[in-house]
Amino acid sequence: MFDTIHEECGVFGIYTRERSDVASSTYFALYALQHRGQESCGIAVNDRGVITCRKDVGLVPEVFHKDTLTQLGQGTMAIGHCRYSTTGSSSPINAQPLVVRHCKGPLALAHNGNLVNAQELRQQLELNGAIFHTTNDSEVISYIITRERLLSPSIEEAVAKAMYTIKGAYSLVIMSPQKLMAVRDPHGFRPLCIGRLPDDGGYVFASESCALDTLGVEFVRDVEPGEIVIADENGLRSIRTHCGGPSSICVFEYVYFARPDSVIEGVSVHEARQRAGRLLYRENPQEADVVIGVPDSGLDAALGYAKESGIPYGVGFIKNRYIGRTFIQPTQGQREDAVRIKLNVIKETVQGKRVVMVDDSIVRGTTCARIVRLLREAGAKEVHFAVTCPPFINPCYFGTDIDSREHLIACRMSIPEIAKQIDVDSLTYLSVEGVRSIAKGAHCGFCTGCFTGEYPVEVPDEMPKSKFEHKIEKKPR
Amino acid sequence: MFDTIHEECGVFGIYTRERSDVASSTYFALYALQHRGQESCGIAVNDRGVITCRKDVGLVPEVFHKDTLTQLGQGTMAIGHCRYSTTGSSSPINAQPLVVRHCKGPLALAHNGNLVNAQELRQQLELNGAIFHTTNDSEVISYIITRERLLSPSIEEAVAKAMYTIKGAYSLVIMSPQKLMAVRDPHGFRPLCIGRLPDDGGYVFASESCALDTLGVEFVRDVEPGEIVIADENGLRSIRTHCGGPSSICVFEYVYFARPDSVIEGVSVHEARQRAGRLLYRENPQEADVVIGVPDSGLDAALGYAKESGIPYGVGFIKNRYIGRTFIQPTQGQREDAVRIKLNVIKETVQGKRVVMVDDSIVRGTTCARIVRLLREAGAKEVHFAVTCPPFINPCYFGTDIDSREHLIACRMSIPEIAKQIDVDSLTYLSVEGVRSIAKGAHCGFCTGCFTGEYPVEVPDEMPKSKFEHKIEKKPR
Amino acid sequence: MFDTIHEECGVFGIYTRERSDVASSTYFALYALQHRGQESCGIAVNDRGVITCRKDVGLVPEVFHKDTLTQLGQGTMAIGHCRYSTTGSSSPINAQPLVVRHCKGPLALAHNGNLVNAQELRQQLELNGAIFHTTNDSEVISYIITRERLLSPSIEEAVAKAMYTIKGAYSLVIMSPQKLMAVRDPHGFRPLCIGRLPDDGGYVFASESCALDTLGVEFVRDVEPGEIVIADENGLRSIRTHCGGPSSICVFEYVYFARPDSVIEGVSVHEARQRAGRLLYRENPQEADVVIGVPDSGLDAALGYAKESGIPYGVGFIKNRYIGRTFIQPTQGQREDAVRIKLNVIKETVQGKRVVMVDDSIVRGTTCARIVRLLREAGAKEVHFAVTCPPFINPCYFGTDIDSREHLIACRMSIPEIAKQIDVDSLTYLSVEGVRSIAKGAHCGFCTGCFTGEYPVEVPDEMPKSKFEHKIEKKPR
Amino acid sequence: MFDTIHEECGVFGIYTRERSDVASSTYFALYALQHRGQESCGIAVNDRGVITCRKDVGLVPEVFHKDTLTQLGQGTMAIGHCRYSTTGSSSPINAQPLVVRHCKGPLALAHNGNLVNAQELRQQLELNGAIFHTTNDSEVISYIITRERLLSPSIEEAVAKAMYTIKGAYSLVIMSPQKLMAVRDPHGFRPLCIGRLPDDGGYVFASESCALDTLGVEFVRDVEPGEIVIADENGLRSIRTHCGGPSSICVFEYVYFARPDSVIEGVSVHEARQRAGRLLYRENPQEADVVIGVPDSGLDAALGYAKESGIPYGVGFIKNRYIGRTFIQPTQGQREDAVRIKLNVIKETVQGKRVVMVDDSIVRGTTCARIVRLLREAGAKEVHFAVTCPPFINPCYFGTDIDSREHLIACRMSIPEIAKQIDVDSLTYLSVEGVRSIAKGAHCGFCTGCFTGEYPVEVPDEMPKSKFEHKIEKKPR
Repeated sequence: MFDTIHEECGVFGIYTRERSDVASSTYFALYALQHRGQESCGIAVNDRGVITCRKDVGLVPEVFHKDTLTQLGQGTMAIGHCRYSTTGSSSPINAQPLVVRHCKGPLALAHNGNLVNAQELRQQLELNGAIFHTTNDSEVISYIITRERLLSPSIEEAVAKAMYTIKGAYSLVIMSPQKLMAVRDPHGFRPLCIGRLPDDGGYVFASESCALDTLGVEFVRDVEPGEIVIADENGLRSIRTHCGGPSSICVFEYVYFARPDSVIEGVSVHEARQRAGRLLYRENPQEADVVIGVPDSGLDAALGYAKESGIPYGVGFIKNRYIGRTFIQPTQGQREDAVRIKLNVIKETVQGKRVVMVDDSIVRGTTCARIVRLLREAGAKEVHFAVTCPPFINPCYFGTDIDSREHLIACRMSIPEIAKQIDVDSLTYLSVEGVRSIAKGAHCGFCTGCFTGEYPVEVPDEMPKSKFEHKIEKKPR
Repeated sequence: MFDTIHEECGVFGIYTRERSDVASSTYFALYALQHRGQESCGIAVNDRGVITCRKDVGLVPEVFHKDTLTQLGQGTMAIGHCRYSTTGSSSPINAQPLVVRHCKGPLALAHNGNLVNAQELRQQLELNGAIFHTTNDSEVISYIITRERLLSPSIEEAVAKAMYTIKGAYSLVIMSPQKLMAVRDPHGFRPLCIGRLPDDGGYVFASESCALDTLGVEFVRDVEPGEIVIADENGLRSIRTHCGGPSSICVFEYVYFARPDSVIEGVSVHEARQRAGRLLYRENPQEADVVIGVPDSGLDAALGYAKESGIPYGVGFIKNRYIGRTFIQPTQGQREDAVRIKLNVIKETVQGKRVVMVDDSIVRGTTCARIVRLLREAGAKEVHFAVTCPPFINPCYFGTDIDSREHLIACRMSIPEIAKQIDVDSLTYLSVEGVRSIAKGAHCGFCTGCFTGEYPVEVPDEMPKSKFEHKIEKKPR
Repeated sequence: MFDTIHEECGVFGIYTRERSDVASSTYFALYALQHRGQESCGIAVNDRGVITCRKDVGLVPEVFHKDTLTQLGQGTMAIGHCRYSTTGSSSPINAQPLVVRHCKGPLALAHNGNLVNAQELRQQLELNGAIFHTTNDSEVISYIITRERLLSPSIEEAVAKAMYTIKGAYSLVIMSPQKLMAVRDPHGFRPLCIGRLPDDGGYVFASESCALDTLGVEFVRDVEPGEIVIADENGLRSIRTHCGGPSSICVFEYVYFARPDSVIEGVSVHEARQRAGRLLYRENPQEADVVIGVPDSGLDAALGYAKESGIPYGVGFIKNRYIGRTFIQPTQGQREDAVRIKLNVIKETVQGKRVVMVDDSIVRGTTCARIVRLLREAGAKEVHFAVTCPPFINPCYFGTDIDSREHLIACRMSIPEIAKQIDVDSLTYLSVEGVRSIAKGAHCGFCTGCFTGEYPVEVPDEMPKSKFEHKIEKKPR
Repeated sequence: MFDTIHEECGVFGIYTRERSDVASSTYFALYALQHRGQESCGIAVNDRGVITCRKDVGLVPEVFHKDTLTQLGQGTMAIGHCRYSTTGSSSPINAQPLVVRHCKGPLALAHNGNLVNAQELRQQLELNGAIFHTTNDSEVISYIITRERLLSPSIEEAVAKAMYTIKGAYSLVIMSPQKLMAVRDPHGFRPLCIGRLPDDGGYVFASESCALDTLGVEFVRDVEPGEIVIADENGLRSIRTHCGGPSSICVFEYVYFARPDSVIEGVSVHEARQRAGRLLYRENPQEADVVIGVPDSGLDAALGYAKESGIPYGVGFIKNRYIGRTFIQPTQGQREDAVRIKLNVIKETVQGKRVVMVDDSIVRGTTCARIVRLLREAGAKEVHFAVTCPPFINPCYFGTDIDSREHLIACRMSIPEIAKQIDVDSLTYLSVEGVRSIAKGAHCGFCTGCFTGEYPVEVPDEMPKSKFEHKIEKKPR
């Protein structure tokens, strides 16, 4: 809502032994994953090999109604997707799942992540006569899988071969007439986990474990980086050809993207955020009268900060729960101001006090400046701003919208300058070492490229992928 | 969302010296009051005596779009209303503000509360030839004011006279061609406050102060019980004929209805809730490992409980922020369950622990039983349920939907029976004395009729008002 | 679609012996009456005395969907209404049926027509404490009936007494808990007829007989001017207290308003229009090569003209059947032109020919000027315009929107001047005598006030009713 | 609306020299072509090489609103499409124009017709790694053009080469970054014409000339069978490599599909239909008292029949103009009947008379049986049914939905049997010779395959294309 970083997608898949209401289960799961993408969503149902898909621009409750779910009908498999888009345009063409027909029948695919060599692959494919309907990586991936499928005995082997070609971040669910697959790139940039249906003997795959909890589905384990997991009539099996390399899950999943009730790579997101708060205090102990969090994602860390420091935890802000996408922004000339409408200070908490305010990140710095002003107006004596990650100074190539340096305040200013700009008495960021240790005990390594500029895979020289992608959507050669 | 008590309405009014975008200001204010009523809403704008109204079933962002706000246009006054309705039917006829034309021109009126003698007045009016379009008290009030207006030199004197006739709970904003009025019943059952526009010299009236904060409007004071406040070209003035009696604001405004960032009768709602938590512990100290609140309204009290007891405060639940009115409920046959979809436990917080769970009330007891089950599934060793008010055992006649004993679990069971039914290790309610002291320092007394059966005004012998009202809507003589 | 006169309403009622799907029957009937009003529509269903109503701005298919019809449910009675409004504003408040509750229970009412003393009655009522929600005559009528009902033993007697007070044009259907009534003013300005359900023993009332045909319902007879027809468990009966005076149905019902397949007062509308064409030729024989009609209402008369004259009938225009209310009008700057988009000439019919073009009326003269231009562009050698009624030079007080002289071209120009203005070689209007004889054989007399200024009842001195009404809607005292 | 044959599509394109509101012009043109397809529609705008597209399921006024047109914005080129679909499912995926990106940039394409070798081409392409998003021929055509484009110096040469591969019926508009093209298959199965913008020096292409009239655009000529017409900054030019063979426009375009005000291959559709009526009488003179047409497409022929026979022409039916796609069909149990709701007899026209009823075709025979019953109920003494084409006994492979013999009554019954089944006193079809001469003077030959089984191009052995296509959409290999 405020100027934050956005994740691009959430994916889900379900395989049941008996024909059942898989569309509804996917609907409920997408609700649980809605925080990962609010621009468009879709569900594709597989009923005895026939795939029916419904997708559009909008939130889950906007795209799906009772009758649309009924039309999707029953089946033994379904996949779902929700998507955030960096462009304001509301084009339904880029909604997923992507459903295509290739030489061996229909294929449905949902993707979370970002390829680093998508442009290169597109050009190769175009020179071989390919046509593209979308600007999604999903379409590139579908082509690569299709090309391999011509020569492979099975869809899973085609996928395994395709993984030698596609590079970057991808957590995929893929549905063929008979099989449901979950695929995670060898670095495991984005999360993906497996659940087991209590009675049916079926399985689900989801970006986050909170989707499993929503369905009352038992958590089995994470899909391993590089692993292909196949669910079909024979149960669950894996292809691990691409497993075993160094892994690097996006640390920002813990800091901000994931829901606090999810557990990723063995670590509770809520716990990781509390730990981030604790570390912030340990790295930079600050005297104060109250610790508050900026809702919603700063709250857990504020609690950790309070526990570590012994400073009382307080409720500093109330967020209006009804402000949504259709909210009409106040214009310049109006008395009202968007931040004030969305967020209100509880004066009693901060008045006359030295306040530590905890939040997950600073992107442009405009919103947090206005939040600080609200605190000052409410009578806060001092405002100390503690941020649960290091400054963003590099673009992300792996599926978020930190796509350019120009909007990042930390690229233009030093920390003292930022503190002055947003009018805080002190500003502390968590160190890179600190952020690396918030998910201590995780089964994998971390990508911290946006902080350090060191990326686990080679990235394009030119400009960030997602930025470039939108350009080509608009400009023909 | 869960089986809780509902408030019936929120009201707002704005008077500006210069013609301005009063429709937009009302729109933003209704957003801040949306928690008081989600069934329907409306805005009436007064432009040089011409009143234009737009109202319908739906949330603020569903009823109002950029073009509808533009159509309402500019003006010097506007009033707004949001309404909760106890019936499932979505009839736009009962939406407010009510705009009528009487002998002296148009009149717009928005009402929060419930009259105890509405039936009696309706019958009297009908015997004099009145016809009713709605089942709202607003229409009864309009008739009574109109009848007095025939003999009164001004609208405010007509209102003052009408107050001798209408009995019960009412916080009103009334707009005539030249004047905006705020009226609060002599007991002050529902809140209503006054704000001053920073530059314009104009005024606003609102059910809660959070609407003032949203607009950046300075809080002046509460409207006194029994007071009529008039804003017109001469500024602000009052009629206090009905002031001075014993007052009795609904204590449940502090417990649950109001937004925590509002200040009512001088007391912060957030503070009152924290105090409720503290008192709960003081009245019944419970040993435990963690204190958690049920979102959203149990969180403040849980924090108070934790502070008073020294038991660590934890985040026990994550509430899905995207589940709204259009959410398709899972059916009986489905694997999924509505509570689980809306609320997820953070296992790390409760696993292996003795948990104190704090919430604002128990109505039917069905939802809290399922929430307790979630905690047990997540491995809580003990669950102690602390409720921030006494048991509901009497109907409310003053504008909430506690309209009948049949659904109230506390009317059918003893506290130990309820504890058993919802499967908690202990169950404690705040005492009546306790709930009376949560808003200590408030400028007025309290109504605790739903707990004690002692009402500040005489109530009908027969069945509760709101229940009866719906009957008459359906059954002709 | 083009600048024509508009009827204000269509009404319908159904009474069945057995509980049945009366909402659907009303829905289909409103489709048949949709030409009488496209601004808003509504249906009120009576199920064992409980009246449920649904109404809104929009066409029948826009307001009613499968689920809205289902919600209205089954019943033994229903009434329906469709309405044309002269104002552009789309306020649902004036939609009908009007459903109110008075001293003896609920009452639903749908009205076609216009009272001449509505203002006077409103003022009287207001001075007695009445409040008005709408600017409809229906609300005035409801008050008058309610006032009489206080002293009358039955609703039908109250209606009979009310008819001494209300003056002007009204065709009403009224639904009380036990009875359905059809009421026509003593002059019978607007049509209203009775049908008998084939099997059930029930009855329907409708503005036009085409609604009966749509339902497969047998036509019984017209409601007589001044008659009250009551359908209840005892079958059908009448109150004829107000019958027997001189009648005066609006002749424009035959010329333009009614559907050609309706039969009104014993005369087929289609036949009346053909006769109008025949009379036009007889009064002013014109030599020509082809006779064409302007779709849709000029076609029948053109056929009559052709038959009478022996000049071949041709299809001169094709009207685009898809242009509806949501059509985006081309702006001034655009190449396109609204008339051209809606209407296209069949060049082969008119090229090089002397053309007689027949239409029902000229109001402002702007549209017909553009239609004539289309004919000239298509190569018509001569264009002779024959109009099936006399020039409009007076306002109508009885339910159409000829509300002021200022827009009527015939008030500003002589016939030769109009001919020159719209660029036709000749222009002939049907004579007043002629128009009076198009429905020869009808059971009643005619109102031709808009042509002659002689009205069957006394009309207000001041400005036309409908115009005035919109003023008061906007301007308070 | 009744059980008739459906055309599959209408196409439109516009090229302007100056940047202008091409989206609006296309919007108005699609209104004129709406009769050719009501299932979905779309517009793609080209602004300096950037193509923006909007398409969805629904009629033109449902898909396009003021804001959607504004979003499409200005440009120098646009293409539009409206589509009829034989399946009930409302999948937006098959809406056109198709916009893809290939090796040389973006390409937009709109198609009317049907390829006979689409399946074969799809399979070839799939074996080369192609993936398909839709079941449209447009996607096949795009691939073929793309494949040729890799080796061709220009898009128009790629199109010319592709025409050696694609076989069957196609009228295309194709938009590249710099060029707008109109392409018609060598047989010219579907119409396509060229217009010149009055002032701008630009051009338009449209399925029918009525779209040109709507825009006030001058008709230039038809695109020749086999011709590629290119509009770009150098004006208009042609590639005629595929011209000159025998042509065979679908004769049913004259009988039913096209709008009567269109002129196709030099012949007015209205005139052709009148001639069909004349020929019907000449082939089978029938004594009668009145000739009536079934609205809308039977009216012109009825007029021709009347003129030829000297029997008076009458208006037999009134069609309800408000019944649209969202009309709720009466269910079996209801009193009402869909045909009666849509069509009403003018009793005065037919009562006691021998009636000749003219319509364009008989498909299943169910609707016309009910229409005949309406006439009998209205008192027609005799009903003679004259049909303006021969019996359908063969599937169509070229873009209509006569896709299977099973639903065609003429495949199951002899003419006397059909006459008995639909209860007419006589039944006459126009002869094959007759139908071939209705468009006498046309610049091309005719396809009458649906009557004779003799097709101008080789057709697949197996089942009809369109039928098969829907199968594959649902069934994977």
